Amino acid sequence: MNDNMLVASIRGLGIDMINQAKSGHPGIVLGAAPILYTLYKNHLNINASDSTWINRDRFVMSAGHGSALLYSVLFVCGYGITIDDLKNFRHIGYKTPGHPEYGITPGVDCSTGPLGQGIANAVGMALGQKILKERYRIDQSKSLVDYDVYALVGDGDLMEGISYEACSLAGTLKLNNLIVLYDSNGISLDGPTSKTFNENVRARFEAMGWDTYLVKDGNKIGDIDKAISKAKKSNKPSLIEVKTVIGYGSMLAGTSTVHGKPLDDADIEQLKKQLGLPNEPFYVNVEEFSHLRNHIANRVNPKYMEWNDNYQAYVRLCGGDSTLAGYLFNNDFNYDLINLDWKFPTSLKQALRDTNNVFINYLNRNIKTIAGGSADLASTTKTYVKELADIDANNFNGNNIWFGVREHAMGAILNGMALVGVKAYGSTFLSFVDYLKPAMRMSALMKLPVIYIFTHDSISIGPDGPTHQPIEQLALMRSIPGMKVYRPADAKELLGCWQAILNTNHNPSALVLSRNEVDLLKESKALETLNGGYILHHETTALKAILVATGTETHTALHIAYEYERAGEGGIRVVSMPCLEKFLETDQNYQESVLPPGYRKIIIEAGSSFGWHRIMKDYDGIISLDTFGVSGTKDEVLQAMNFSYQQIFTRVQELLVKK
Amino acid sequence: MNDNMLVASIRGLGIDMINQAKSGHPGIVLGAAPILYTLYKNHLNINASDSTWINRDRFVMSAGHGSALLYSVLFVCGYGITIDDLKNFRHIGYKTPGHPEYGITPGVDCSTGPLGQGIANAVGMALGQKILKERYRIDQSKSLVDYDVYALVGDGDLMEGISYEACSLAGTLKLNNLIVLYDSNGISLDGPTSKTFNENVRARFEAMGWDTYLVKDGNKIGDIDKAISKAKKSNKPSLIEVKTVIGYGSMLAGTSTVHGKPLDDADIEQLKKQLGLPNEPFYVNVEEFSHLRNHIANRVNPKYMEWNDNYQAYVRLCGGDSTLAGYLFNNDFNYDLINLDWKFPTSLKQALRDTNNVFINYLNRNIKTIAGGSADLASTTKTYVKELADIDANNFNGNNIWFGVREHAMGAILNGMALVGVKAYGSTFLSFVDYLKPAMRMSALMKLPVIYIFTHDSISIGPDGPTHQPIEQLALMRSIPGMKVYRPADAKELLGCWQAILNTNHNPSALVLSRNEVDLLKESKALETLNGGYILHHETTALKAILVATGTETHTALHIAYEYERAGEGGIRVVSMPCLEKFLETDQNYQESVLPPGYRKIIIEAGSSFGWHRIMKDYDGIISLDTFGVSGTKDEVLQAMNFSYQQIFTRVQELLVKK
Repeated sequence: MNDNMLVASIRGLGIDMINQAKSGHPGIVLGAAPILYTLYKNHLNINASDSTWINRDRFVMSAGHGSALLYSVLFVCGYGITIDDLKNFRHIGYKTPGHPEYGITPGVDCSTGPLGQGIANAVGMALGQKILKERYRIDQSKSLVDYDVYALVGDGDLMEGISYEACSLAGTLKLNNLIVLYDSNGISLDGPTSKTFNENVRARFEAMGWDTYLVKDGNKIGDIDKAISKAKKSNKPSLIEVKTVIGYGSMLAGTSTVHGKPLDDADIEQLKKQLGLPNEPFYVNVEEFSHLRNHIANRVNPKYMEWNDNYQAYVRLCGGDSTLAGYLFNNDFNYDLINLDWKFPTSLKQALRDTNNVFINYLNRNIKTIAGGSADLASTTKTYVKELADIDANNFNGNNIWFGVREHAMGAILNGMALVGVKAYGSTFLSFVDYLKPAMRMSALMKLPVIYIFTHDSISIGPDGPTHQPIEQLALMRSIPGMKVYRPADAKELLGCWQAILNTNHNPSALVLSRNEVDLLKESKALETLNGGYILHHETTALKAILVATGTETHTALHIAYEYERAGEGGIRVVSMPCLEKFLETDQNYQESVLPPGYRKIIIEAGSSFGWHRIMKDYDGIISLDTFGVSGTKDEVLQAMNFSYQQIFTRVQELLVKK
Repeated sequence: MNDNMLVASIRGLGIDMINQAKSGHPGIVLGAAPILYTLYKNHLNINASDSTWINRDRFVMSAGHGSALLYSVLFVCGYGITIDDLKNFRHIGYKTPGHPEYGITPGVDCSTGPLGQGIANAVGMALGQKILKERYRIDQSKSLVDYDVYALVGDGDLMEGISYEACSLAGTLKLNNLIVLYDSNGISLDGPTSKTFNENVRARFEAMGWDTYLVKDGNKIGDIDKAISKAKKSNKPSLIEVKTVIGYGSMLAGTSTVHGKPLDDADIEQLKKQLGLPNEPFYVNVEEFSHLRNHIANRVNPKYMEWNDNYQAYVRLCGGDSTLAGYLFNNDFNYDLINLDWKFPTSLKQALRDTNNVFINYLNRNIKTIAGGSADLASTTKTYVKELADIDANNFNGNNIWFGVREHAMGAILNGMALVGVKAYGSTFLSFVDYLKPAMRMSALMKLPVIYIFTHDSISIGPDGPTHQPIEQLALMRSIPGMKVYRPADAKELLGCWQAILNTNHNPSALVLSRNEVDLLKESKALETLNGGYILHHETTALKAILVATGTETHTALHIAYEYERAGEGGIRVVSMPCLEKFLETDQNYQESVLPPGYRKIIIEAGSSFGWHRIMKDYDGIISLDTFGVSGTKDEVLQAMNFSYQQIFTRVQELLVKK
């Protein structure tokens, strides 16, 4: 096998793709090709013909702009990508999108592009592997789940705060199944990193509990190989810094110009000559590629076969029931929670964060793939499972993950965990959803069933003040395509929300809970919650108007309707809308049965009105919060924001008589 | 002066505040009191009677939950806070909100609470000071701006990615005017940091180019004092790790329970006994407080007087014109950009990011306090000023800041710069606004006139794919209370936007620009842009319908109206809406003159419809993008998303005839 020719081919194909597309990032293709080549040739336990093998080693191209390099490597290694896909790089309808996209390309384990996300996803995958390994054990020495996670990062990834957060946690948890290859070329898009990133990266990672290695010449495959071999034996996560030259071989090598601009024809000509490639686009060396593919197959096949034996052994352990490996193999999850006997006392008066703890407990005790935690707020978001163990560096046979004060990494780690089959949840305060928005967008983009739990859901938290009082956060989440936001009113609706969330297999969900106590509503219905919105309280005389509310405001709406009834006006209907997105997915007949056109709606929610006007007609009204909060006691704050019960009642009265 | 009694008093007052409020964080009050005491007594150059003195040293309480400690210290030091303010901690109407809020409390230089923001703001203040120092020089050795920036951080701050980003940049820029005091107590809200944060923090900071110091016993004022004195002499930023005991003196000392829960009466009684304080709430030792105040005044007064001399010297340098210190002293900025002679050729066809570079150049050459940069995308957002110098560790006499791939820190650093009087701007791609949302919210909350610039503003960027194609990002920004989002259609509107932005003194602004070329519109008007929305093209016959658009879609709307006119239908009006928030601030008469009720509007924007329904009536329509994009060429993507010119035209036709 001719390593030089194979690396040259990978470089050549990547450059041809970018040249043909007139768009892409040649710098990393030329600089980092030997790294990926070495990794795929000698280390990754993969099977190109079974690219979703659940026990494969994972690879995350965190420097997602290196997509051409990745596709080129995958093609050379025999994945289900055609030369036509390469020729149509960055075109719709091919397996070669501009940045790697999960679900489109065989061999792409994760969507990447926004820097820092990928490495944090890799940490999540490594953590997920550690957790699942304990849960799918065959015996003391064997598990159905046993693989390593690799990522390629650039300077940009390591400058992003999310990568620091995730890597700091990886060091604390001693995730020795994680190996990060750092394409260290001293250049970012705008210029030399000496301008922006003048730190000792390896020393920093060592301070964070990692092992580090240096490969001084990124063209020396043997040195890269040795470093990876050492890293695999480490009892810590490993960072291998590989010094490379961005755009190696190009006339623009070593400059920021070559980062993101196709090479010109003269440059390509001289480059191919240097690389020993014929000057023809998309040159394929069938014989050498075949050598490489056989080499990888020969190396991995024994492990692949062994895993199949393990799988049979595991099924035997499960008494022959192969469905017990279950959710590990796909995201299609089916769970009937509602029909269990929950027996909420009618007198129940409890903060939903506390009620939620009951569900979190139950789910962790009954669902094999679930795990989660909090960004250092478990004691107050109440997502901690006291009866089950903590996950830490010495024990992954647990359920409680301590993410630290790292909301952003938490989101991305949940994504990584979901990618390897964990039903993952994470919690913090609603106002801090801002911190993890980029990760949440990636959950939605990758269609991952990640569960976000947010408590302290409105200004009624009081004294912590405007930085901690969410206003626009519900709107922020609802505006993300594919995101489902749940804000239940009581324990029964919370049950319904969990039913919906558990069976949402291809979308993220956000569960939004109050800190304050709420009653169990007589008329609430868990099952109807699945429609997103339903008639909570029917008008007792001819319909006059509809109050629509979510969460704690549902109680306010109900009390107002009752007051009207006591005063002899029974025409007020109350609609509970725990999930607007799900309601908007129901058919028009249902929607019109709940919210009949021609009747005035008044929407009440302790958050921004932003987004609600979608379901409002000209004659409708909304009582919302569109300015920042203030610091004071709960009652002071509600009063100051014109949102006390009495003030809302007055506003409803005014809106109902409005012309 | 009795240090012990003063520190005890600070602790006692803080505990009394929390006890009276039944809410707050006693752990940090008891643990970190000696740190703040030492800093205020011996180091901060401040004047309690002139708390906004522009040359004061800045202090940022990054661990914002330590507000009671800060207020207690400020009270003892003689700032304009009364004992009544302390007694009403966390109540509306007093100077003692739950977390420190800029503008409410004398001596509070920055709003804090969401962890990590404060330390990044402090980096921004330190950078701002370095820049302004060069611009307000009196001679080689003297400047009108010459102070240090201090911050108190806890473990939570240092776990947050934004703190890493900002501190890494501070190390690269060798901001030796920045001293960070690290309240290192090994406990966060949920428990011991060994669970989550098992790294060598000082080694990490050293790897990032900082000097570090260790104070082993946080009660030893002399040791803290020595460490600060050393740090002031460093040529790097400094981190002083002070080992403290959370809740020192409480029966719960050293546990996470004492982090955020008031102490009980028995605990307070034994604590006060231990501290040598009488067991009475809000005990004030008038004599000792007075000693401390005199001590600080005697220490600082010579510097305060010297600065007044410097100010006189500076005014003399300016030929006696004191207004030339100008913007440095307040945020009230007044600039008439429109009436300059811009001479855009009518044939101008240019990407707005390029046109914007002309303005950025002009402003940097003409506004004394302006500075900004990009999160490693200046070469493509085109915010780089080639003619002016870069800011780096060896030169702060420049204009271009290289933030690195650190969007979040960029936002918070801009906030810090704005807090010290820099007209600060920063740029990245629109899709990455997600990364800096938390900082942007703080800009709005603190009412800082920070300028965010976003290019690559829609799916029409094409091949980079859905991770880089903004969809919900305009909605995200518009949903932030107080935020103004500008999306101009051409060079004239961009000029108008800049006029509005420069004179927006108490709110952040976001300027959103396309990557693609646009024509100069014949009918666009810079001045009318100031209304946020205006009639770009009048109907030529009786009004039938109105097309409302922003940015590049304004051109689409206009062409559609022209097509209708050519086909004999002159009733289509085109309204350009570069800033919806500003339009909604105009009076109803103006709004109705632009968008007369009863006439159908069709809104066209290459982004989520989320939020637009606010201005829509039942008969209106919207052509928007509510799903994620795809990777392909620009034309492929527009076609796939039903957003090509022809497709939009067809959709307009359908909407216009809809019943």
